[in-house]
Amino acid sequence: MAVHRLVVACPDRSGIVAAVAGALAGIGANIVHADQHTDRTREPEFFMRVEFEGVAPEVADAAMDPLRRDFAMTVRTIDGETVPELAIFVSKEDHCLRELLHECRNGDLRARVGAVVGNHRELEEVCVPYGVPFHHVPVLPGDREAAERRQIEICRGVDAVVLAKYMQIVSPGFLSAFGGRVLNIHHSFLPAFVGANPYRQAHDRGVKLIGATAHYVTEVLDAGPIVEQDVARVDHRMDPRELRRIGRQVERAVLARAVRWHVEDRVIRSGDRTVVFA
Amino acid sequence: MAVHRLVVACPDRSGIVAAVAGALAGIGANIVHADQHTDRTREPEFFMRVEFEGVAPEVADAAMDPLRRDFAMTVRTIDGETVPELAIFVSKEDHCLRELLHECRNGDLRARVGAVVGNHRELEEVCVPYGVPFHHVPVLPGDREAAERRQIEICRGVDAVVLAKYMQIVSPGFLSAFGGRVLNIHHSFLPAFVGANPYRQAHDRGVKLIGATAHYVTEVLDAGPIVEQDVARVDHRMDPRELRRIGRQVERAVLARAVRWHVEDRVIRSGDRTVVFA
Amino acid sequence: MAVHRLVVACPDRSGIVAAVAGALAGIGANIVHADQHTDRTREPEFFMRVEFEGVAPEVADAAMDPLRRDFAMTVRTIDGETVPELAIFVSKEDHCLRELLHECRNGDLRARVGAVVGNHRELEEVCVPYGVPFHHVPVLPGDREAAERRQIEICRGVDAVVLAKYMQIVSPGFLSAFGGRVLNIHHSFLPAFVGANPYRQAHDRGVKLIGATAHYVTEVLDAGPIVEQDVARVDHRMDPRELRRIGRQVERAVLARAVRWHVEDRVIRSGDRTVVFA
Amino acid sequence: MAVHRLVVACPDRSGIVAAVAGALAGIGANIVHADQHTDRTREPEFFMRVEFEGVAPEVADAAMDPLRRDFAMTVRTIDGETVPELAIFVSKEDHCLRELLHECRNGDLRARVGAVVGNHRELEEVCVPYGVPFHHVPVLPGDREAAERRQIEICRGVDAVVLAKYMQIVSPGFLSAFGGRVLNIHHSFLPAFVGANPYRQAHDRGVKLIGATAHYVTEVLDAGPIVEQDVARVDHRMDPRELRRIGRQVERAVLARAVRWHVEDRVIRSGDRTVVFA
Repeated sequence: MAVHRLVVACPDRSGIVAAVAGALAGIGANIVHADQHTDRTREPEFFMRVEFEGVAPEVADAAMDPLRRDFAMTVRTIDGETVPELAIFVSKEDHCLRELLHECRNGDLRARVGAVVGNHRELEEVCVPYGVPFHHVPVLPGDREAAERRQIEICRGVDAVVLAKYMQIVSPGFLSAFGGRVLNIHHSFLPAFVGANPYRQAHDRGVKLIGATAHYVTEVLDAGPIVEQDVARVDHRMDPRELRRIGRQVERAVLARAVRWHVEDRVIRSGDRTVVFA
Repeated sequence: MAVHRLVVACPDRSGIVAAVAGALAGIGANIVHADQHTDRTREPEFFMRVEFEGVAPEVADAAMDPLRRDFAMTVRTIDGETVPELAIFVSKEDHCLRELLHECRNGDLRARVGAVVGNHRELEEVCVPYGVPFHHVPVLPGDREAAERRQIEICRGVDAVVLAKYMQIVSPGFLSAFGGRVLNIHHSFLPAFVGANPYRQAHDRGVKLIGATAHYVTEVLDAGPIVEQDVARVDHRMDPRELRRIGRQVERAVLARAVRWHVEDRVIRSGDRTVVFA
Repeated sequence: MAVHRLVVACPDRSGIVAAVAGALAGIGANIVHADQHTDRTREPEFFMRVEFEGVAPEVADAAMDPLRRDFAMTVRTIDGETVPELAIFVSKEDHCLRELLHECRNGDLRARVGAVVGNHRELEEVCVPYGVPFHHVPVLPGDREAAERRQIEICRGVDAVVLAKYMQIVSPGFLSAFGGRVLNIHHSFLPAFVGANPYRQAHDRGVKLIGATAHYVTEVLDAGPIVEQDVARVDHRMDPRELRRIGRQVERAVLARAVRWHVEDRVIRSGDRTVVFA
Repeated sequence: MAVHRLVVACPDRSGIVAAVAGALAGIGANIVHADQHTDRTREPEFFMRVEFEGVAPEVADAAMDPLRRDFAMTVRTIDGETVPELAIFVSKEDHCLRELLHECRNGDLRARVGAVVGNHRELEEVCVPYGVPFHHVPVLPGDREAAERRQIEICRGVDAVVLAKYMQIVSPGFLSAFGGRVLNIHHSFLPAFVGANPYRQAHDRGVKLIGATAHYVTEVLDAGPIVEQDVARVDHRMDPRELRRIGRQVERAVLARAVRWHVEDRVIRSGDRTVVFA
C-alpha cells in the first residue's frame, strides 16, 4: 500500500497532534510514522512530519483545511508514489555527481535526475551511461544573468537544485526561482573555514578532523541553514592534497544524505536552522 | 512546568495516535514531544512515548483507561518530578561505577544511586565522597542463593539494577525480582566475542575496532535485548592490555547512555530487541 | 623524484633499524618515511616499511642482500613508478565495483583495473565507460574447477584479486595461484554474523551498529586476516532492507581503504593478523 | 626491562634515521618502536620519536652528542621510569578534573597530579579522595599578576600545566614560566566558535556536530597548536544546555587523550601545528 506524507508547521499551542491525528483518523488514514518537534528558541513553533496510508493524498490534504484555518497551519501533502526530480549543477569535480547518479540508479536515493548542468564540459561523459541529459552552460565573467536565465529554463519544474561542487555563486533571483530548494555542499565543517581553499586553511591550522557541510543556499555565502555535516580524522602526515582526497569522501557522503533527507521531506527550515526528521 | 510521560504499547491498528493524542487533549494536556514506532517484524506492534505537560500524571493515567480497554494497550504513566533510584553492582573495576556516580552527581543522569553492591570491598572508598551506601555482599561458590537474597533485600524498591562490571551471573529469580529491569555492560561488540576475555579474543582475531554493548539481562548469557553499542578504533600495535584500556572508555560511555535512556523511559523492550526513542 | 619502498620482515633482535637505515644511507638513499612494528604475541617478529628516494629500487634491493642473510630477513622492494594491476570479481551488486573503478579513475586509488570477472552479466555495462574489460565466467554447480581455471588464466599477472561482493567461495588452488593476495569484503563486523544474510541476523539480534570487514581470503570461510573494518549506527526503525542500504555504504568505504592500503604495500600479514601501516 | 625514549628534531637531510639508529645500535640499545615525520610545509624539518631499551637514558643521551653537532639536532632523552608531574587548573566545572584524576589513579594516564589550582573553591572536595593538594588562588580583577606569581610558585617543577576548564586567560609570563607546556581544552571544534559561549553559538548556527579542541596555549587566544579534536552528533531537539552536556563528554575525552600523548612525549610542536605520534 502506498505511503504518503504530510509536513506541517504552525505556531505552537495545545492540541495540534490530536487535531492532525484526529483529522487523519476521521478519513480512515493510518499513521505509519510520525515525528514532531517544537522549536522554543524564538516564538514557539511546531513542526510535524507524518507518514500515512489508506487514503489518497488529495483526500488527506482536503482534510487538513480546517486545521490550516484554526491553527494558522501550513501543510504540504506529498504523494509517496511521485518520484522527485533533481537538477545537479557541477563544474569539473565528479565525485559528488557520481555519488548522486549512482544512488538514484540503485534506488537508495528515491529521485530522478532530470538534468545535469555544467559550466564546463568535463563531466558530460559521466552522465552518458546513466542516460541523464548534460547541459553545458558556460558562466562568463560579467554575464551570470544570461547563464542563470538558461539554467532556470532547463530546470523548470525540478523539485530541487543540488550544487554538487558547482563552485559558482548563484544570484538571489536564481534562488527565488527554486523557492529556496537549492542545496550546496561546502568543503569544510562550517562555520570553520568559510570561503575558498578550506583544505589549505585546515592544513595551515593543523586541525585533526576535516569536515563537510550540506546546507541550503541563501543570499549570504556559506551561511544558509545546515542540513548535514560530518568529519573524518586526519593527521600531521597529510598535505593539503591528501586532505582533499579524504574531504571528497566526506563531501559526497554528506551531500547524498542531505539530498535523501530533502527528497523524503525530512528537512524543515526553521529560520536559520533546520529540523531534520532523519 | 513539570513534564510527565506516557509509555504505550499495543497491537498495531488504525487510529492509535489519534486516540492517545485526543485523550490527552481532552483533559487539557499539551504534548511536548512524542515518538512512535510500529514493529512489523512479527505481528505488528505499536509503541509510543509521549512527553506532556499541563495535567497531573494521575489524571493522564486515568484518561488512558478507555484506551487500555479498546486497544488492549499497556500504558505506563511516569511522574516527571520523581527521581528514579538505581542500584549499582560492582566487583573490582571502578570505571563504570565512577562514571555513573559522576553523571548522577552533575545531573547529566537524572537518577539517584540508592545502593552500591560489591562482591568485593575494593570499591567501597569510591562511594564515600558521593555519600552513597556501599554494601559488601560476597558471593561464595555454591551459595549464590543466599547472596542474592541479601542483594534483593538491599535493593528493594529500586527502579533498575545496573551491573557495572559485576562479573557474576545472576539467577532467573534475581531477574524476576526486578521485573527485567537489570542492565549489564558487556565488554565486546555483541554478538562477537561472547563470554570471557573478549579483549584477548579481539587481539587474537586482529580486529580493527573494539566495542561494548549495554543490554538487558536475560536468562541466556550475553543474549539479552541490546540497548546501546559503540566501538573505538584500535590497531596492530595494541596488546590486550591496551585494548582493555580503550575498551574501558567505550564501556563506561555506552553504559552511561543506556542507563540514561532507561531512566528517561526511552527504551521499550520488544521481544529480543529494543525500541530506543533516544 | 620517485619514491620507492621496502617491506621488511624478520625475527626480532637488536640493530635491525640501524642495519636497514645504514644500508640505505650507504647507497645514498634518503628515507622519506618509515614505519616499524614488533609483534610480541608469539616469537617476536619485526616488520618495517620504508619509503625512500634517491636511488633506483634495484640498487636498494641489492643493498639488502647482506641483511637478508644476516637477519634472516625477507625484503620486498617496490618500484614506486609501477602502477599495480587489480582483478575485480563481482556478481550482481555494483556498489563496490563502482567505488573501485571510480577511485582508480580519479587517482585516489593508485592502481589499474586489468579485468573485471563476473559470474553473472549484470555488471558488464558498468565497466564500459571506464574502458575496463569485463569477463563473464559463469560458475556452474559442480564445476567450479573449470571456472577457476579460466579465471586464473584471465587474471594472470595481476597484483591482487579483489572479491567485490563476489558471493562465491574460492578454492585453495585459486588462492595459491595468487599467492594469498586475494581480498574480500564481508558484509558484517566479523567475527559477528559469520556466513550468509548478516543483515537479517543483525536485525534479529537488534544490534545498534552494523559493520563491514575487508580481509584476506584463506581456506577457512570468513576467518582470514582482517585488514579494515568500520561500522555505521542503525536504529530500531530500520528493517533488513534499510540495514543493507547502510551496509553498502560501509562495505564500499571499507573495501576501498583496504585495497588502497594493499596496493601501497601498507598491509603485512602476521599469522592470522595484519600489521597495517596506514 | 625499562623502555626509555628520544625525541629528535632537526633540519631535514639524508641519513638522519641511519645516524640515530646507528648511534643507538653502537651502544647496544634496542629500538622498540620508532616514528618519524618530515614536515615539508616550510623549510623541511625532520622529527623522530624513538622508544628504546637496553641502556640507561644518560648513556643514550650522551651518544646523541655528535648528532646534535652534525645535524643541528635537538634531542630530548626521557627516562621511562620517571612519572611526569601535572598541575591542573580549574574553575567550577569538574568533569575534566575528575577525568584526569581518575585516569591517573587507574594508571591509564601515566602521570602524577602534583597540584590542583582553582580560582574558586568549588572543586576542593573532588581532590580529597585522590590525596591531591588543592590550592585556592583567587584571580581578582586587575591583579592577575599576583595570582600568577603564586600559581607559578605552587607549580614549580611540574612537567605540564593543564587548564581543565580554567576559564581564565593566562599571561605571556605565565606561559614562559612553563616553557610552553600549557595545555587547554576549548569547548568547540576550533577554528569554529572562537571565544565565549560556543554552545550558544553552535545552537544558533544549527550545526549537526559539536566538538572540542585540546591545544597548547599561546599568546593568541584559541590559536595555539592543536593537539587533539573530536566531535559528537547533535540534532535540532537539543537546546544549548543539552549541547553543553554532550560537549562535556567530548571535552574530557579529548583533553585526556591530549594529556596522555603529551606526557608520553608523543606531541612535537612544529610552528603553529603539531606532530602527534599517537
